[in-house]
Amino acid sequence: MGTGKIASQVGHAAVLGVEKSRKFNKLWLESWFYEGQPKIVVKVNSLEELMEIQQDAEDLRIPVIIVQDRGLTQIPGGTITCICIGPAPSDIIDKVTSDLKLL
Amino acid sequence: MGTGKIASQVGHAAVLGVEKSRKFNKLWLESWFYEGQPKIVVKVNSLEELMEIQQDAEDLRIPVIIVQDRGLTQIPGGTITCICIGPAPSDIIDKVTSDLKLL
Repeated sequence: MGTGKIASQVGHAAVLGVEKSRKFNKLWLESWFYEGQPKIVVKVNSLEELMEIQQDAEDLRIPVIIVQDRGLTQIPGGTITCICIGPAPSDIIDKVTSDLKLL
Repeated sequence: MGTGKIASQVGHAAVLGVEKSRKFNKLWLESWFYEGQPKIVVKVNSLEELMEIQQDAEDLRIPVIIVQDRGLTQIPGGTITCICIGPAPSDIIDKVTSDLKLL
């Protein structure tokens, strides 16, 4: 994916993550907005690794969103491009993401 | 900016754009969600060009968000990194963005 495509996938994840958190944990969402809505974009090496991280996050009761592309440009429809973990307190998110490298 | 930093700026823009549209034009927001919340990431050559496009969009009554970075990483605090135009009907947004190239 090109830079703009990657950015749009992260945009999808961020918007959907906020929408989910509005129902899931409004206090976490409000704290995150108050702190300047920080977003850290990290990378994985495989879909398998991404799905393991998703499971770890869900086990910790962190809201998770999976983004699947519609396949109109660049990649096949249904491709999982990224996930959104949180918003949640950073010490909880760090338990599942702190080993990942920045994109 | 690195790819992850660019993606996070677009994420900020998307989330803030949705929040603004919730108050500004809920019908446009709901239509956009229904259509799969499309996001097109395009680029400009200068801050001056970005600000002209922002003005053009506001003149057309399209909601616009300006993203300024807090300067904790990579770039100085207060740097304008991107804007979000819309959500709005694509034929209206195209009036101000159709000449721009994809990022």
